[in-house]
Amino acid sequence: MPEFPESFAQDFDRLLRWRRDVRRFRPDPVEGALLESCLASFSLAPSVGLSEPWRIVSVASRGARASALANFEAANARALAGYDGEKARLYAGLKLSGMREAPVQLAVFCDEATTKGAGLGATTMPEMRRYSVVAAITQFWLKARIEGLGVGWVSILDPARLAADLQVPESWHLVAYLCIGWPEEAADTPELERAGWERRQGGIELLER
Amino acid sequence: MPEFPESFAQDFDRLLRWRRDVRRFRPDPVEGALLESCLASFSLAPSVGLSEPWRIVSVASRGARASALANFEAANARALAGYDGEKARLYAGLKLSGMREAPVQLAVFCDEATTKGAGLGATTMPEMRRYSVVAAITQFWLKARIEGLGVGWVSILDPARLAADLQVPESWHLVAYLCIGWPEEAADTPELERAGWERRQGGIELLER
Repeated sequence: MPEFPESFAQDFDRLLRWRRDVRRFRPDPVEGALLESCLASFSLAPSVGLSEPWRIVSVASRGARASALANFEAANARALAGYDGEKARLYAGLKLSGMREAPVQLAVFCDEATTKGAGLGATTMPEMRRYSVVAAITQFWLKARIEGLGVGWVSILDPARLAADLQVPESWHLVAYLCIGWPEEAADTPELERAGWERRQGGIELLER
Repeated sequence: MPEFPESFAQDFDRLLRWRRDVRRFRPDPVEGALLESCLASFSLAPSVGLSEPWRIVSVASRGARASALANFEAANARALAGYDGEKARLYAGLKLSGMREAPVQLAVFCDEATTKGAGLGATTMPEMRRYSVVAAITQFWLKARIEGLGVGWVSILDPARLAADLQVPESWHLVAYLCIGWPEEAADTPELERAGWERRQGGIELLER
């Protein structure tokens, strides 16, 4: 069992406290080698039956970026239409994606048809494949933050439309659209909390059974 | 922006390499305060719209443990029946849960009906609430590992049956059944790989669009 330095647990807590969903990026590029080293954390993630179902598309071309942005803007306008009064005013003022600025943008899919792992652990809960992809994204997010990079997870999108626009195989299901780059600022409080949308509750209560 | 010690990135990589899905536990109890400090990582997890939809049930009573174990055993027998020949022989020899030994067992749910976050980010992708729970579990898993605890995620279960047996609210959807305790051994290779079930591929290739 590897020993960690005494300060490691505290530094890890600090990492969790300063990890943010970032929507405001500086335009500076991200070095390919740095991105690669962060992406290596995918291969160390837990996956059901060792199925490793993550599939990653780098959304880099002008055309792919434009269709993703249009997708977000349409979904965001529909979402705004679902709010009234003060909540609508607040929503309209939120910056909910860094898709115009983020130098790196990744669409992360789950391959529902992978035969890797031979279905172990996914018979009664096939959603475990998608959950494996989420676990890998979470590890990547923390790793990127250690390197000073910010990650923003955009979910205000029509996932089927994005998959079609990116021409990925039929069996790939969108899990996340990630914006990645150098954040404009660091913060230990979520932007939604600072903007007055919602507050973190804090504290976990267990139900006993 | 908080600075991390130079060794932090390497230690974090080591943490990812030595995190395992643990199914073999020593019977020693886990102190309540230690478990609580690990569970605090839930409140620092990303959640869609700050909805914090995680709900945790401590499965502690003899009756609740027995129904969860029976649920696993039935699902595992059905899963085994789906394999033939060498794969069936291998599957039958795998230890896929520590439910008989793990001193702490948590059923982690997603509250699909929470109004917290006012639905932000979950209109086109309502599954984001479940994904938020998975991100929180991933952070908890790493935090527990730093403290020397092992975590095993059991997904060979009928989730609706477990929710009914634990008498949780209708809107709670099972995301994970976690076994937690002191691992019998440390390993940097998944048990499924050591048992010859599947190998990790290693390396991530990006598709360009």
